[in-house]
Amino acid sequence: SSVLATKNPIQESKPCKRLVLYYHDTLFNGTDVANATSAAVANATGLDKEHKFGMLVVFNDPMTKDHHLLSPPVAKAQGFYFYDMKDAYTAWFAYTLVFNSSEHKGTLNIMGADLMNDETRDLSVVGGTGDFFMARGICTFRTDTFQGDFYFRLKMDIKLYECY
Amino acid sequence: SSVLATKNPIQESKPCKRLVLYYHDTLFNGTDVANATSAAVANATGLDKEHKFGMLVVFNDPMTKDHHLLSPPVAKAQGFYFYDMKDAYTAWFAYTLVFNSSEHKGTLNIMGADLMNDETRDLSVVGGTGDFFMARGICTFRTDTFQGDFYFRLKMDIKLYECY
Amino acid sequence: SSVLATKNPIQESKPCKRLVLYYHDTLFNGTDVANATSAAVANATGLDKEHKFGMLVVFNDPMTKDHHLLSPPVAKAQGFYFYDMKDAYTAWFAYTLVFNSSEHKGTLNIMGADLMNDETRDLSVVGGTGDFFMARGICTFRTDTFQGDFYFRLKMDIKLYECY
Repeated sequence: SSVLATKNPIQESKPCKRLVLYYHDTLFNGTDVANATSAAVANATGLDKEHKFGMLVVFNDPMTKDHHLLSPPVAKAQGFYFYDMKDAYTAWFAYTLVFNSSEHKGTLNIMGADLMNDETRDLSVVGGTGDFFMARGICTFRTDTFQGDFYFRLKMDIKLYECY
Repeated sequence: SSVLATKNPIQESKPCKRLVLYYHDTLFNGTDVANATSAAVANATGLDKEHKFGMLVVFNDPMTKDHHLLSPPVAKAQGFYFYDMKDAYTAWFAYTLVFNSSEHKGTLNIMGADLMNDETRDLSVVGGTGDFFMARGICTFRTDTFQGDFYFRLKMDIKLYECY
Repeated sequence: SSVLATKNPIQESKPCKRLVLYYHDTLFNGTDVANATSAAVANATGLDKEHKFGMLVVFNDPMTKDHHLLSPPVAKAQGFYFYDMKDAYTAWFAYTLVFNSSEHKGTLNIMGADLMNDETRDLSVVGGTGDFFMARGICTFRTDTFQGDFYFRLKMDIKLYECY
């Protein structure tokens, strides 16, 4: 029997796997080496310094099951984001969720636009390894909080639609 | 019935969805804040300044249906490129096409090499969201024009082979 | 017959295509323009200079079939990596393997975390073009050698599980 790839019955409401995790980004302020988990590697450009156009941040951020920064991390998010809008804030992310616990071992690779003005925004899970071998899906961001320029927290609702 | 993923009958000539759009990159020259839509966040390195090796540009560029810069944009391209060759020009792109019109709502996530010396070059559409939920495909670049160091235009022929 | 995408019988031990290649990264030291094939475009940050946190490198590196740097390259790896850990080394890669030989024409697009402390680590092959049209798979890194700060070599074991 021949089955067209374009006809696979994937339903957005029925992921084969789902994980809800919180991402904590604590940006290096020049002195707080002990607590910071991310750092700017390129500064905002003159195109719009107020909205940080072009500022590029490398991160290695803890992922927790609840929204407490100090809860035990169940994964690390390793990657980068940069701001990419004039007159408002949007960002762009590419990163890997690295799991190394009794519950999950493996990685999920994610990329997409963080349209910060939207209440939720969808990025693509483009691949996975280990327990997440060859996974694909959607990662939905929701801003949980931000505190000044140096801490923000995102709720990441990860829905996989291809599981092997 | 068991169907091997490796046997899905995808045919390169028969995308399930096709979009042809023009990408306009107007690089910030240090003064033109009003019109520029991209900015360098890292400068060319000493490895080959002439061919801009390592120059990294963050963009939020309009996508239009024809090749006029001032036509109404039907999407935005948000992401980055950098130059990565000695003695010639090639670049590498990763970006999101953000659609928010009556025609399309959602995103396409794209990455790959822009081998500028080739008449056309193929990048990968690695995921999609919204109207393009879980899409995959090919995005073919063709240089439409470039004007000095601060404006170039690419024709992007986007062919999706996985549509849900 | 209806076949759930989540039930495709992909087996990790049975790729539809496999390539084992060596990646050679020769970092520009400020003077060696002739031999260097990569260059730092952002420097390590104050978050951990010793482990190069945030240092971002753009590369256009040769890929060979054996581990000799001077063997004829069978592909180029064009992309970037950055270091992203305090107190140890990890990196994050996104790049394209560009093949242009009698054996293979086309590209493979790869991204993921390089957890340098692990003997092997898996990244995602998220797309392909040309001979590798719409491919997906896993790219397993193994450190083959490193010599000081300016040369290292990775064995890349590329296993494709979706071939068209």
